[in-house]
Amino acid sequence: MINNEHYSQENQGPYEYFDIKNFELEYGGKIANCRLAYSTHGTLNEAKDNVILFPHMFSGTSKSLEAYVGEGKALDPSKYFIIFPNQIGNGVSTSPHNTDDVSISMCDFPQISIGDDVRAQHELLSQQFGITEVALVLGWSMGAQQTYEWAVRYPEMVKRAAPIGGTAKTSDHNTVMVEGLIGALRTAINFNDGNYTSCEELDKGLCHLAVLFSAIGVSREFYAKEHWRDAGFESVEQFLVDFWKAWFRPMDPNALVTMLDKWQHADVSKHTGGDIAAALGSIQAVVHNMPFEQDMMFTDLECREDSAMIPNCEHKPIPSTWGHFAMFGVFPQDFGYIDGQLKELLAVST
Amino acid sequence: MINNEHYSQENQGPYEYFDIKNFELEYGGKIANCRLAYSTHGTLNEAKDNVILFPHMFSGTSKSLEAYVGEGKALDPSKYFIIFPNQIGNGVSTSPHNTDDVSISMCDFPQISIGDDVRAQHELLSQQFGITEVALVLGWSMGAQQTYEWAVRYPEMVKRAAPIGGTAKTSDHNTVMVEGLIGALRTAINFNDGNYTSCEELDKGLCHLAVLFSAIGVSREFYAKEHWRDAGFESVEQFLVDFWKAWFRPMDPNALVTMLDKWQHADVSKHTGGDIAAALGSIQAVVHNMPFEQDMMFTDLECREDSAMIPNCEHKPIPSTWGHFAMFGVFPQDFGYIDGQLKELLAVST
Repeated sequence: MINNEHYSQENQGPYEYFDIKNFELEYGGKIANCRLAYSTHGTLNEAKDNVILFPHMFSGTSKSLEAYVGEGKALDPSKYFIIFPNQIGNGVSTSPHNTDDVSISMCDFPQISIGDDVRAQHELLSQQFGITEVALVLGWSMGAQQTYEWAVRYPEMVKRAAPIGGTAKTSDHNTVMVEGLIGALRTAINFNDGNYTSCEELDKGLCHLAVLFSAIGVSREFYAKEHWRDAGFESVEQFLVDFWKAWFRPMDPNALVTMLDKWQHADVSKHTGGDIAAALGSIQAVVHNMPFEQDMMFTDLECREDSAMIPNCEHKPIPSTWGHFAMFGVFPQDFGYIDGQLKELLAVST
Repeated sequence: MINNEHYSQENQGPYEYFDIKNFELEYGGKIANCRLAYSTHGTLNEAKDNVILFPHMFSGTSKSLEAYVGEGKALDPSKYFIIFPNQIGNGVSTSPHNTDDVSISMCDFPQISIGDDVRAQHELLSQQFGITEVALVLGWSMGAQQTYEWAVRYPEMVKRAAPIGGTAKTSDHNTVMVEGLIGALRTAINFNDGNYTSCEELDKGLCHLAVLFSAIGVSREFYAKEHWRDAGFESVEQFLVDFWKAWFRPMDPNALVTMLDKWQHADVSKHTGGDIAAALGSIQAVVHNMPFEQDMMFTDLECREDSAMIPNCEHKPIPSTWGHFAMFGVFPQDFGYIDGQLKELLAVST
């Protein structure tokens, strides 16, 4: 085990734990005590029908997108009971660096799937809270992958779904892109097949990952029009250091690799023998699919193909030069736009 | 010095050397004996006006694009005297791993610019061959950067220019992308600030670089339509291993970093105090600017901006799902298309 304050209650909390004993994994093996960390906002009503589930993106935690919660916002805690689960392996829930399972050493943490996360979240909702209906599942990027998994795996339970900047199955192109992201850590000096002794040793690899994200995470136009200035940065170099590198440097590389591997293998067609149309065709939720118009990671074109296979779906691209990272809402107009879109979806009757 | 057979006469030759003593570099410092390796095809005519200069792309050599030379092709050696110079630092010309300059250790090879290459090539043409006029300068990617540098630096000498899949100045977005490529080597296990003892030690870093190229080097459509099958590969994995990794694994990492740094700093507006319009406006050559329609590295949109600033320019995008790597001509139709475009440009009177 490695102590990493980045994932502490102080930095990512408050969060609580829901423990699942002998949690069996899709790819085989099990976690003796799978601790699913989560946070909630608002109050579960008596009918238990005011639930919003908001799984997080790659490298995120339950805290990352809390800004979307607030009175007057779409995710209004005076109306909704909003649950932010932490991904298995994200550094807060059971993860390579924090597991006390003696059968799992840090470097051979088992392979986790998006399906594992969604099953664990389902146990949290049903067993901890007795929830049988979710008004909205939403998520960005890997959060969108979890959203699709929810809508396909539990079609009767999910009333509305908002996959934001993500696809139901990782495309071959996205797969090689993620292989490049994984490589930033796996081939980095001191990674040592995951057997490092402190995250500081991996600083070069973490910074390299940050640079790769800076190249594909926003749009070309963002750089061409120097929109980093509007975000308060004085140079591209400062944007790289104070935004991208500052984000990744405190993190645990094995946690990041665990999540990237999950991302790479996301595929709801596992449920239908590889038939993606059948999988998406089984969705009962009202879906508003919200890609980012200038996304280089999950393109609007790819997302459009998903939309066409979902029975009750509106395709609603988000315009922003921040591309894939518009969801961060660094520009108030992006935040407001997305919040407005979520209000619209929540107003749809099902 | 490290022996690397990849750069030998057997593998990259035949090539000859043109030696430049005390070659002064744009960024300062000098190379005591700068050996510019080059190959030629065809015969220089008496008027010395049948010259085609074809500088190479990143990670290439004088041999990389020889397939474009042949009877009946645009670059017909029965008509033209075709010169393929090797970039300084490419592994064949004076490079980190092969320099016998005692003042330069392998890991602190001086920073080289595109301008250095073009000045060295100019010395080769003028001093070795007495050439004062070039019928066509063409090049792909970093070759396009050298083409632009030639057309701006020696406007009266260059009659026709074909920048293919490259820009006159590296954009900010391209700069961070290249920073990501450099990182694959600089942060790799065993790189040790360039002080490695054999290239084999850097195999993980070289393979990682290859994966990054596989993600941005071709188009999304190439993967979506599985066009790697048409190139003779049986899986994406085989395409990664037998095409991309096989290409980079034999190479010298310091040579690759030297070239990437050059790429990152390419900028013809150095000649005009930062005024790119003035630099491109000074070009006298007939220019056919040929971006690749689906290029993710140098986009058609970026290249279009260059075209608009060049007095005598036609913008002629190349359609191929191979994207930036259509120039390799793996698909015969791409090779034929580009060859046809070059014939058209060579037929333009100046």
